[in-house]
Amino acid sequence: MVVETQCARFESIALDSGATLSPVEVAYETYGRLNATRTNAILITHAFTGDAHAAGISHENGKPGWWENMIGAGKAFDTDRYFVICSNVLGGCQGTTGPGTINPATGKPYALTFPVITIRDMVRLQRMLIEHLGIPKLLAVAGGSMGGMQALEWAVSYPEMVCSTIPIATTWRHSAQQIAFNEVGRQAIMADPDWAEGDYYETKPPARGLSIARMVGHITYMSDESMREKFGRRLREKEKFGFDFGVDFEVESYLRYRGNQFVSRFDANSYLYITKAEDYFDLTNGTGKLAEAFTTVDTRFLVISFTSDWLYPSYQSQEIVRVLRRVNGDVAYCDLQSNYGHDAFLVDVAEQSEIVRGFLTSTERMAKAA
Amino acid sequence: MVVETQCARFESIALDSGATLSPVEVAYETYGRLNATRTNAILITHAFTGDAHAAGISHENGKPGWWENMIGAGKAFDTDRYFVICSNVLGGCQGTTGPGTINPATGKPYALTFPVITIRDMVRLQRMLIEHLGIPKLLAVAGGSMGGMQALEWAVSYPEMVCSTIPIATTWRHSAQQIAFNEVGRQAIMADPDWAEGDYYETKPPARGLSIARMVGHITYMSDESMREKFGRRLREKEKFGFDFGVDFEVESYLRYRGNQFVSRFDANSYLYITKAEDYFDLTNGTGKLAEAFTTVDTRFLVISFTSDWLYPSYQSQEIVRVLRRVNGDVAYCDLQSNYGHDAFLVDVAEQSEIVRGFLTSTERMAKAA
Repeated sequence: MVVETQCARFESIALDSGATLSPVEVAYETYGRLNATRTNAILITHAFTGDAHAAGISHENGKPGWWENMIGAGKAFDTDRYFVICSNVLGGCQGTTGPGTINPATGKPYALTFPVITIRDMVRLQRMLIEHLGIPKLLAVAGGSMGGMQALEWAVSYPEMVCSTIPIATTWRHSAQQIAFNEVGRQAIMADPDWAEGDYYETKPPARGLSIARMVGHITYMSDESMREKFGRRLREKEKFGFDFGVDFEVESYLRYRGNQFVSRFDANSYLYITKAEDYFDLTNGTGKLAEAFTTVDTRFLVISFTSDWLYPSYQSQEIVRVLRRVNGDVAYCDLQSNYGHDAFLVDVAEQSEIVRGFLTSTERMAKAA
Repeated sequence: MVVETQCARFESIALDSGATLSPVEVAYETYGRLNATRTNAILITHAFTGDAHAAGISHENGKPGWWENMIGAGKAFDTDRYFVICSNVLGGCQGTTGPGTINPATGKPYALTFPVITIRDMVRLQRMLIEHLGIPKLLAVAGGSMGGMQALEWAVSYPEMVCSTIPIATTWRHSAQQIAFNEVGRQAIMADPDWAEGDYYETKPPARGLSIARMVGHITYMSDESMREKFGRRLREKEKFGFDFGVDFEVESYLRYRGNQFVSRFDANSYLYITKAEDYFDLTNGTGKLAEAFTTVDTRFLVISFTSDWLYPSYQSQEIVRVLRRVNGDVAYCDLQSNYGHDAFLVDVAEQSEIVRGFLTSTERMAKAA
């Protein structure tokens, strides 16, 4: 299945900060076909560094999508049955308007003049896309990590447009520890002289800073155990002692490789804007009263967490589930056994697939009955 | 109790790498008095960024020691009863020879010409100090984190010189995750242009890189829960949205402050050398056979871990305890309930104090009986 990323353009979008962005473009892909009654559409929301290319083989570079193991014919998000949509988030750098986009008013990239964005802003743009595609109501919104935040925000902001919500390995607001890890990444980028206050588009990007930010990320995405299984203490081939502070252990080599690789595909300013959006995210707008936030919600929920995920620990999903139960919400919850840490929602998908499949089938049935 | 850091100088030390360092100096402090039979000496080994100033008020700057709550009259390491010694580690930057020391052969700081050092090298220098002080056998060697590695190494390398060993919140070798966190810190330092391949002593230190390394460290020293209790999601006073990627949350402000503070007291090259020593540390020298490493050991052990310590998780202490039991070692183990994460051995010391006190008393009794 070769897919092409498409682009929708809108005149403007009004943001939470009060700013307006004009015009705004959104990159997206679709898989499967929209049915005649327009009731089989599912929106997939991506994690922090993801993009619109969730499934299939990219027409552009031949690469498979980031959730290829979950989306396709006969898979959890079955493209023989559902019309699946995925778009790049606002503030991103994979086709949707972000800090690296040319500001038509100046002819130069926005850089730090790009307005602050929120998870709700991302969802607002997704809603514009869904309306543009002529879809009155989504069968489901599903995503992991920051994608889960967007799924939750959809349920709260546009309850009339969502039959079901599948937030995976996520939280309704970042903890101090989660903010702290994001802050280290931001500091690493901003400490790189090449960052140049965000004005690097005509020179060179802050590659070393961005690479270090990514290294921190990778540690938090894996578990202690999955790192041990993957790397242990295996040494790279070299003399016994590293007189040059070079690479001694395979885990070091891996982190440096993944850090450098990331630089070629991600914009440092997008890293800053999107991590801030995550940190600002709070489904209660600062009241801390989650039950109140959920009172207008009118969707089914399937909440999934993973036992070894220490970046978005299970207790954060369980808070969501407990409060949904308190407001008598329709919620299913699974804490899946996995050693893969936060990455589990991307790589350890056998059980997740079965659970999502069953949930979507019952959601279809309920939607038809309604 | 005002204390002064002292210094012992030795002609040379032969290192694990095969290199010789000449001369070598070691900064140390002592608290309490050595008894007539020279049987009441306890060596305290410090953690990564610690120093010789473990207790009392510094003559130099008026600051209390880093384990002031554990060492002193009537405290766990009771200076009315014991002669307590603490020295700065080899490779450090608080008085002991390290990469910032002037190389007499060149008249310039060693910088990266400083030889690679190991935990065993640190212990070797400590042993020279203990002999210099005329102490034939230590009643105990005690330390947390990297200090615990040194305590373990003492028991294995010099079993005839140690009555008891108290490794706290530590491991017999670093996991891939622990190596990975250290590697991020090293990369942050080496990415700073001011690092200049380690040759910054006549210019300016790599302050931003070192500060970022320290920020990562601080996150790993605390627990998810202790960060939440200390900071939550409290915002700094400013406008609602951080248009400048400035400090929004208190946890960000804290990390930046602690990062910057660290720069004034710690040498970036010492950071590189000491973290490599931690990563290389392996009590089995790569065989993985811990029982064999422990066969010559002839000391009592008190092993302590903390339930919320995710940097040196309890299972690592439990591995040590299980293997000591297998070789019929004399080992007591406590997994102490604490929310303070890895920092617990420094800040949550009420129960730890009682346990150490009892263990030292029984060790004294056994040493006298022997």
